[in-house]
Amino acid sequence: MANSTETSTKTAITPRRDQDFPEWYQQAIRAAELAEPSDVRGCMVIRPWGYGIWENMQRQLDAMFRATGHRNAYFPLFIPLSYFAKEAEHVEGFAKECAVVTHTRLEVDKDGKMKPGSPLREPLVVRPTSETIIGASYARWVQSYRDLPVLINQWANVVRWEMRPRLFLRTTEFLWQEGHTVHETESEAREEAKLILNLYERFVRDHLAIPVFIGEKSESERFPGAVQTLAIEAMVQDRRAIQAGTSHFLGQNFARASGIQFQNREGKQEFGWTTSWGMTTRLIGTLIMMHGDDDGIVLPPRIAPTQIVILPVATKEESRARVLEACDSLALQLRGRCFGELPLEVEIDRRDIGGGVKNWEWIKKGVPIRIEIGPRDLEKNALVISRRDQPIKTKESMPTQEFVAVVPEILTSIQQNLLERAKKFREENTRVIESKKDFYDFFTPKNPEKPEIHGGFALAHWNGSRAEEERIKNDLKVTIRVVPLGDSSEPGKCIFTGEPSARRVVWAKSY
Amino acid sequence: MANSTETSTKTAITPRRDQDFPEWYQQAIRAAELAEPSDVRGCMVIRPWGYGIWENMQRQLDAMFRATGHRNAYFPLFIPLSYFAKEAEHVEGFAKECAVVTHTRLEVDKDGKMKPGSPLREPLVVRPTSETIIGASYARWVQSYRDLPVLINQWANVVRWEMRPRLFLRTTEFLWQEGHTVHETESEAREEAKLILNLYERFVRDHLAIPVFIGEKSESERFPGAVQTLAIEAMVQDRRAIQAGTSHFLGQNFARASGIQFQNREGKQEFGWTTSWGMTTRLIGTLIMMHGDDDGIVLPPRIAPTQIVILPVATKEESRARVLEACDSLALQLRGRCFGELPLEVEIDRRDIGGGVKNWEWIKKGVPIRIEIGPRDLEKNALVISRRDQPIKTKESMPTQEFVAVVPEILTSIQQNLLERAKKFREENTRVIESKKDFYDFFTPKNPEKPEIHGGFALAHWNGSRAEEERIKNDLKVTIRVVPLGDSSEPGKCIFTGEPSARRVVWAKSY
Repeated sequence: MANSTETSTKTAITPRRDQDFPEWYQQAIRAAELAEPSDVRGCMVIRPWGYGIWENMQRQLDAMFRATGHRNAYFPLFIPLSYFAKEAEHVEGFAKECAVVTHTRLEVDKDGKMKPGSPLREPLVVRPTSETIIGASYARWVQSYRDLPVLINQWANVVRWEMRPRLFLRTTEFLWQEGHTVHETESEAREEAKLILNLYERFVRDHLAIPVFIGEKSESERFPGAVQTLAIEAMVQDRRAIQAGTSHFLGQNFARASGIQFQNREGKQEFGWTTSWGMTTRLIGTLIMMHGDDDGIVLPPRIAPTQIVILPVATKEESRARVLEACDSLALQLRGRCFGELPLEVEIDRRDIGGGVKNWEWIKKGVPIRIEIGPRDLEKNALVISRRDQPIKTKESMPTQEFVAVVPEILTSIQQNLLERAKKFREENTRVIESKKDFYDFFTPKNPEKPEIHGGFALAHWNGSRAEEERIKNDLKVTIRVVPLGDSSEPGKCIFTGEPSARRVVWAKSY
Repeated sequence: MANSTETSTKTAITPRRDQDFPEWYQQAIRAAELAEPSDVRGCMVIRPWGYGIWENMQRQLDAMFRATGHRNAYFPLFIPLSYFAKEAEHVEGFAKECAVVTHTRLEVDKDGKMKPGSPLREPLVVRPTSETIIGASYARWVQSYRDLPVLINQWANVVRWEMRPRLFLRTTEFLWQEGHTVHETESEAREEAKLILNLYERFVRDHLAIPVFIGEKSESERFPGAVQTLAIEAMVQDRRAIQAGTSHFLGQNFARASGIQFQNREGKQEFGWTTSWGMTTRLIGTLIMMHGDDDGIVLPPRIAPTQIVILPVATKEESRARVLEACDSLALQLRGRCFGELPLEVEIDRRDIGGGVKNWEWIKKGVPIRIEIGPRDLEKNALVISRRDQPIKTKESMPTQEFVAVVPEILTSIQQNLLERAKKFREENTRVIESKKDFYDFFTPKNPEKPEIHGGFALAHWNGSRAEEERIKNDLKVTIRVVPLGDSSEPGKCIFTGEPSARRVVWAKSY
């Protein structure tokens, strides 16, 4: 029975990616038990397998932040409305997305129903981001240039009211890290924002196997209140872009709004130069759309909560004990091992349910390596290995001791495969485009009723005209994802206006 | 200059503990840069040194949860009012403390002022605890006895509106972990609640050097909706009790309210048996009040963000480079070491400020070991060590290599010293009391104007009368902290009513 369900395609995700990518995404999440919607509009429940991915992201990012001198702290969830309104662009940018606490206490009304009790004198905004509340602390802490830099990060939940929620990608509440730093000079702050951008790029490449374009956002896509927003942009399998992390140089805007002032080396009062930067649970959505296949999600080993699952195959009672013993012994040997600097996480699935069902559950959860051990394998001191980066029917028998010896290499090979595959996909779907016509062709499906595969990243010259940018957005729903940074100059002509342009920029439809 | 400030008592905390313990507490927190109040009523900012303590608590507790089969997940911050009201005792217990979101969006009114925008159809409660919102997910996940047990923990922020806030001990927003489990049988759920109680007891003893009484809460102090609340209770230096962790057996109350039903082994539908349990940032307050002295906070090595700080003593420019080099070399040797299973955290304070000021900052931060290295120490290949558990003037010169060899033992000795000191203090302030008069004497200061040291833990027989419990609370502000668990039976007579009593219970004034 085990084998018959395994070979059936009925257990794969319905629909396939090429049939309905957005619906495939929802079903892949459900099948992997990563998360589910809650009854609170736009808020999700992150289940243990999904949260395990987030914990690994946290652990690895956190180590990178520490290594670059940052420390964690925690600031209030609530922001007084008056604080929040201090930076004009900022409040305008977030006003539509705020959740507002107006009352404390619940009381029973005359019909016996619970209702909000005491009105607050000043409403509180549930933080959509913490620049203003953190700025109030920094204004107290920073007095002199000797107090600088302040290099602090916070792991927290934030709330941005979402009218069209989507698990991980767009949720009303999400989890993130937000770094907030203060520096003595403009150039130091700009360097910090770049340092973090590069750190993010390294993190998603080395841990999530996600290649990205890096660069600056155009003015229209900047963080409200920022002078410069840097971003990393990934291309997922429907050829859309996802912004996977941002790092903002805030100039003195927020320092001025919050009163972060210090005595400089010349004895004069000066406003601090600040940055902020963040990565969110959206990364999990990116990961799914990047590597998933028609059988479910596929996890890079460096981010999987468990790298190896061991499945005892013992249909007969008499061999059961021996098989389980062999599984325990294997797990014991593996758990002592490391994969890079990470300890190997290994799980034995002892549940007394059909082997095929069990195997499919782990395929859908995207665990990098599945090991089956049955009575016949025992006789040969062998096991059967399946890699999630290979077609699900591909299995290999291997002597147990050999497997134990080479497991770090196998995991490294899976990790690299996923990255190479993602790079290849991105290359195949990135076009250097030289004319407006080609640009419109690239982003227009031939048959709008049933849009075939089209689009991707277009690298095209643009002269900085906001009007053109707006027109393209209206015509094609295509936006500038990033403007490559200064060192990548390649003069040419804007394909829309014919004016001189310093460099090509990256265009795409985006999430 | 360095030595003159060190020997001056002016740099210690003002006031001393015996002058004004509550004010000493605030000042010790400020001096250690652990936390500060924010402008949002009752919400605190946890600064990096304070948050570092919390991160260590998290890491160590989390490992204990995992080792006992629990996994982390994340549930929504907001709870629909109708959910929250499902369990009658529960909503009654928390109604006064709720923060309520009633609006989304901000809009500008006709005077140009920002105000809340769109009213929500159903108000949302910011979670004060998550039984009801988590229950809604569990009701979906649990169908059969095969789905049980569900063993999930969440690290999160919660909000309970606080009229008389106090840093760490009582704040409107606080951080915690909340475990929520579902079991097939009553006895399994009761076992789970006890398992966690014992885990908490071990955690605070082994990591925080805090000895506690463990037991059950009387009915009047139970968690709203629980059948049984188990707790650990610590005695801090003003002889009051602090509840340091609670574990609740919830019976089928919340399962019934949330509809957590499963098909049991007999094929019948049954409500699940649930537990919940939590520890909070309040533990940091407990830690401060437990071990702090008139010079500031004192951190047990197993919970300190940094175990060792190295202070270069180089007043003269010509020796500075050599001294710093020796400090770097020492740090390098120490950072490879472990203390128990924990990696040693070492910091070099290179700041160019007075040595006395610097030394005092680290005393106040409670770092377990301070190392000074100056030019004369270099000549002898030695260093000067100060232990935070010893009087601040006690210093010992030690060959550098000897220090490197014995550092784990020194840290273990500090850890044990703090625990022994705390145990001794608790013993000296715990009384077996046999009469109502002695009880009232024990808890009544001789001169109410200037209450001298009095009170502590009283072990006295009580027959379970809620009326007597209420009277004592009104008369003396003394409550039952815990009723020891069933295996500690010692029959006697209630000191208030003369009725038979099965055991002594633990009484104290509490935070």
